Amino acid sequence: MIMNNLYFDWAAASPFDDDILNEALELSKKAYANPSSVHSAGIYAKEILQEYRERTAECLGVPGSTIYYTSGGTESNHLVLMSLLLRPAKGSIVISSIEHPAVKEQALMLTHCGWDVITVPSDSNGIITPDAVISKIRADTALVCVMAVNNETGAIEPVNEIAQAINSVYPGKKKPKFHVDAVQAAGKINFALNNPLIDSAAISAHKIGGPRGIGILHMKTRQEPFLRGGGQESGIRSGTENLFGAIALCLALEKNTVPSEFDKRLTAQKNMTSSFIRELRNIPTCAIIPSSRQTHTYCDEYGYDNRFSPWIIQAAFEGIPSEVLVRSLSEKGLYISAGSACSSRKLSRPVLEAMNVPREHIAGAVRFSFGYTTKEADISILLENIKDTITIFS
Amino acid sequence: MIMNNLYFDWAAASPFDDDILNEALELSKKAYANPSSVHSAGIYAKEILQEYRERTAECLGVPGSTIYYTSGGTESNHLVLMSLLLRPAKGSIVISSIEHPAVKEQALMLTHCGWDVITVPSDSNGIITPDAVISKIRADTALVCVMAVNNETGAIEPVNEIAQAINSVYPGKKKPKFHVDAVQAAGKINFALNNPLIDSAAISAHKIGGPRGIGILHMKTRQEPFLRGGGQESGIRSGTENLFGAIALCLALEKNTVPSEFDKRLTAQKNMTSSFIRELRNIPTCAIIPSSRQTHTYCDEYGYDNRFSPWIIQAAFEGIPSEVLVRSLSEKGLYISAGSACSSRKLSRPVLEAMNVPREHIAGAVRFSFGYTTKEADISILLENIKDTITIFS
Repeated sequence: MIMNNLYFDWAAASPFDDDILNEALELSKKAYANPSSVHSAGIYAKEILQEYRERTAECLGVPGSTIYYTSGGTESNHLVLMSLLLRPAKGSIVISSIEHPAVKEQALMLTHCGWDVITVPSDSNGIITPDAVISKIRADTALVCVMAVNNETGAIEPVNEIAQAINSVYPGKKKPKFHVDAVQAAGKINFALNNPLIDSAAISAHKIGGPRGIGILHMKTRQEPFLRGGGQESGIRSGTENLFGAIALCLALEKNTVPSEFDKRLTAQKNMTSSFIRELRNIPTCAIIPSSRQTHTYCDEYGYDNRFSPWIIQAAFEGIPSEVLVRSLSEKGLYISAGSACSSRKLSRPVLEAMNVPREHIAGAVRFSFGYTTKEADISILLENIKDTITIFS
Repeated sequence: MIMNNLYFDWAAASPFDDDILNEALELSKKAYANPSSVHSAGIYAKEILQEYRERTAECLGVPGSTIYYTSGGTESNHLVLMSLLLRPAKGSIVISSIEHPAVKEQALMLTHCGWDVITVPSDSNGIITPDAVISKIRADTALVCVMAVNNETGAIEPVNEIAQAINSVYPGKKKPKFHVDAVQAAGKINFALNNPLIDSAAISAHKIGGPRGIGILHMKTRQEPFLRGGGQESGIRSGTENLFGAIALCLALEKNTVPSEFDKRLTAQKNMTSSFIRELRNIPTCAIIPSSRQTHTYCDEYGYDNRFSPWIIQAAFEGIPSEVLVRSLSEKGLYISAGSACSSRKLSRPVLEAMNVPREHIAGAVRFSFGYTTKEADISILLENIKDTITIFS
């Protein structure tokens, strides 16, 4: 048996980018002091932190003062949700039905503190429409959360249109805050934070070659934090600043957002993914999830379905439970996932259920997710092995 | 002018230990997958994580199952405090008056959710006595927090005696949980978590040569978390596991707790610190904080005051504001701090105020903190420069 070592689980975590990690480590060793210390070693560390904060902000099209470092996407989402606990009056939180557990589970916890959580249904394509969001907002809604790219299906949510719709219906001070979990968007698809109607967003480094343990919370205007401590990051996120992480996150974002490189890479991946989906569709037992993805109705002139990120594909193979396919491919050194890593050990698949994906498809649904080192040849090997595995099991 | 580069601010953050960071980085590059992924790359990452969790636990004298990785000391403290929000009835939290802001500020935030915060006064030496704690506990007290070593004065708090006292007065189910912020203790002084009366403890890597962004929450028995997401770390701390950090934390703890090395290093530091304090006392304008530290009454046969960690010393120099001394020494490449890094930009000094340190001493109070690369010669240079600076300013 030929043993491969091909990784198609970038949406869970990217492989480390050696150059990025080594550069970040070397620089952070020099800037070793606590950036909050007032001696010159501390001041130097603070200067480096600020320099990389500005560079990071530039990648995202926002001012450096709106970037707060956190330990990752989960914490960035938490900070926004938790700050609701400081509101004088309790109200409601509107979240999409396909949010990551870092938003969904935490929002539900706030019900213990008197908050209501209202869920916006997804359409069968995994898309949250502006109308669906608007229909759920109440006068007491303080926060709306819709992710930028779904981590299971790759659906690109119309967050700018949703932001616009919220603003039209609830202008001025009545407008609920709008938070976007952009963990699967930043550095992956065309996504900038410079929409003044997006109040906050969460980004993580480890989906784009950076290390685990570092993320960003972007906040257009400062919201009082509920989680407190030493007061670092302007009080928004306490805890000694992780300079290594901040530098690495910046380098990863820069690497993944340089316009010329970015466009080339995105186009290449669109082509690879279109071709991959076409090949999958040729397998009679394969169902792309959602089934409308890249069908005639939704294909553009290049054969691409722009409603979805080309980096993530969800599909099911009739008669093969997802964990069987994941393990069979894993034995051959091909790494895909069943659902997201964050729900891998749970039996339910809430995102697919929210989309009303048929039960037999849910049982077989697996995720292929790609990154900037994924090659066409790798995907060909993946396809061959999928076909082989299917032959054995069906 | 001779330019030094001598770092005496280890209590804020230690310099990176190159060997530890390089080893951790190399291994984590191999175990690059998301430990929650079920393919073999994910399983390998999970195995590595578990291996280092067990080794970490061994350093602390507790089972691996009680170790949960977090982003650092602040978050570890938060998790314990936040879990109170799940209690069916609100009650009170008893904290010492010298807690780190990660405990103190967060406890105070819980007053927004109906909880009372009761503060235990410190004695004038910065010591929290068991009697003082017991006198503040009420029937509705759900949690008591006392730190193991104070980050400003180095006072070693009698946490085992406090745990025992709480258990004597409130046996069985009525016992409030007892949480210990051990950030300045682990790897620094004789400190093990294997006291069954300590319910939880917070530890951080970056005070002992590890990176920022990784810490531990030790929990004797699982307490339901209020902060939730993907359910990693048995649900206690959601967010993709930071393997690099976990490995580095383990290596840092191992390096700092190997018994033979540890004892030698601690004794050496005790001698250096005793000598340093004696020299400081010879400076007529110097006041050691607290003034009783290492005075005849409290010295053991080796001239050491075992109530204090030898790694941290607080002192004031009459007529020289702390920031002036910090900056003057910094200009010579000697890095000390005024207060803790976490309070460096605030005007008040709550720990010293809680100890009733005279106002004129508070204004001049600086912290010297040492680590395992600090040499006797370095401290001699520090002393000379302190004397020089004093001569100029007085």
